[in-house]
Amino acid sequence: MTGTVFLVGAGPGDPRLLTLRGAELLQRADVVVHDRLAPPALLDLAPSSAELVDVGKAPGSGPPQSGICEVLVDRALCGLDVVRLKGGDPFVFGRGGEEALACAQAGVPFEVVPGVSAAIAAPAAVRIPVTHRGLASSFAVVTATLEGGSDNELGRVAAAVDTLVVLMAAGRLATVAASLVGAGRSPGEPAAVVQWATTSLQRSVTGTLATLPAQAEAAGIGSPATLVVGEVVALADELAETDLARSVASTEG
Amino acid sequence: MTGTVFLVGAGPGDPRLLTLRGAELLQRADVVVHDRLAPPALLDLAPSSAELVDVGKAPGSGPPQSGICEVLVDRALCGLDVVRLKGGDPFVFGRGGEEALACAQAGVPFEVVPGVSAAIAAPAAVRIPVTHRGLASSFAVVTATLEGGSDNELGRVAAAVDTLVVLMAAGRLATVAASLVGAGRSPGEPAAVVQWATTSLQRSVTGTLATLPAQAEAAGIGSPATLVVGEVVALADELAETDLARSVASTEG
Repeated sequence: MTGTVFLVGAGPGDPRLLTLRGAELLQRADVVVHDRLAPPALLDLAPSSAELVDVGKAPGSGPPQSGICEVLVDRALCGLDVVRLKGGDPFVFGRGGEEALACAQAGVPFEVVPGVSAAIAAPAAVRIPVTHRGLASSFAVVTATLEGGSDNELGRVAAAVDTLVVLMAAGRLATVAASLVGAGRSPGEPAAVVQWATTSLQRSVTGTLATLPAQAEAAGIGSPATLVVGEVVALADELAETDLARSVASTEG
Repeated sequence: MTGTVFLVGAGPGDPRLLTLRGAELLQRADVVVHDRLAPPALLDLAPSSAELVDVGKAPGSGPPQSGICEVLVDRALCGLDVVRLKGGDPFVFGRGGEEALACAQAGVPFEVVPGVSAAIAAPAAVRIPVTHRGLASSFAVVTATLEGGSDNELGRVAAAVDTLVVLMAAGRLATVAASLVGAGRSPGEPAAVVQWATTSLQRSVTGTLATLPAQAEAAGIGSPATLVVGEVVALADELAETDLARSVASTEG
């Protein structure tokens, strides 16, 4: 009997943002293949007998993608059910498509379990809706590595949508912001960057395209970080008015 | 004591795609405010004592948005904890921003619990990754109502990104496809539409921008439906090779 590979979106960071289906699969996994973007606390859901395989891809370390695909296929061909736990959603810049193709080509059954993507949840974590009636009726998602491509794809995307979300933005904010302004977005446009969104380590900086890179550097914002640009960013101020801490303080007073 | 309003993303349809945090909040809600896009089975998670308020917005029925905001704020001001259960993610064309603003303006504490968006999960349900190395390094999300706007925003977005996801596409496929081709996308480009994604009612049609509208009409695809356009759509064929049914059949043979 061949096992099944489950490509499971682990969500943006808070372990409680895993889906019920993801939790159910983790609880009966024979093998869990994880990397540095999947919340470590989720591994506790796996049975103590499960094999945990860390394929963490910090820059320059960990096995290449082909090695990860090999692990998934090999274990499944041994009859084991494999949960491939991926930060965010498996199909949003998660290389889940490549892992699914490797399964398909090897005749291994697989199931894709979508997850909450940081592309939407990181802005939401600082109370920024990616769409909002009258302010934003389109959004696009890219990674910062798109900057510097030959045909200025980043600029084209930036010029076409209301809200732009840039994943893997840490260390590239200055070049990305310059590229966006070059594509016609205003230097005064609201922008925010969120690191480790939805986790206890969450930190964020809000400013404009002109000011954000220096602010983020001063604040030491590093990887993983999500950049969001657009008029919707300004809603965060209005929505921060009643944070829970303030409400608790006022009811106590 | 003022209660809290929880804007909870219910996911794309399959009740198992709710988050653990969403389930926890539902299980201790005093009030659940739901509409036609939130999976009905999720209401069973609420305590039997909870008040269930149906604000289902089929076209032409249900209270207007201001009425929904009023229900949320009123109940919270009475000291009740309110779960506002919204299909997909609250901040992706869910008008969650408006509901959050209403809370903020009334001094009601609120929390946003992101959900799995149909924008990503509907394509994934038919094995289409919205991004894929070498095929798609950007995607945008809009609704079909963007078509016909004064400044051809839909065309601009369509021309700028690799993968385009159009929500609320039912009944508008012909005009949207024409608009996309007018903006420079090839009539032969792969496109798919998925109705009731991730539920037992899921149906889908795959074709090209030129053929899809007639195919979908012939198949009777109605609301709610998600359209996805781009080279990634062609991956669905490769990834369908080993569906579970076929694998089970071959291991039984």
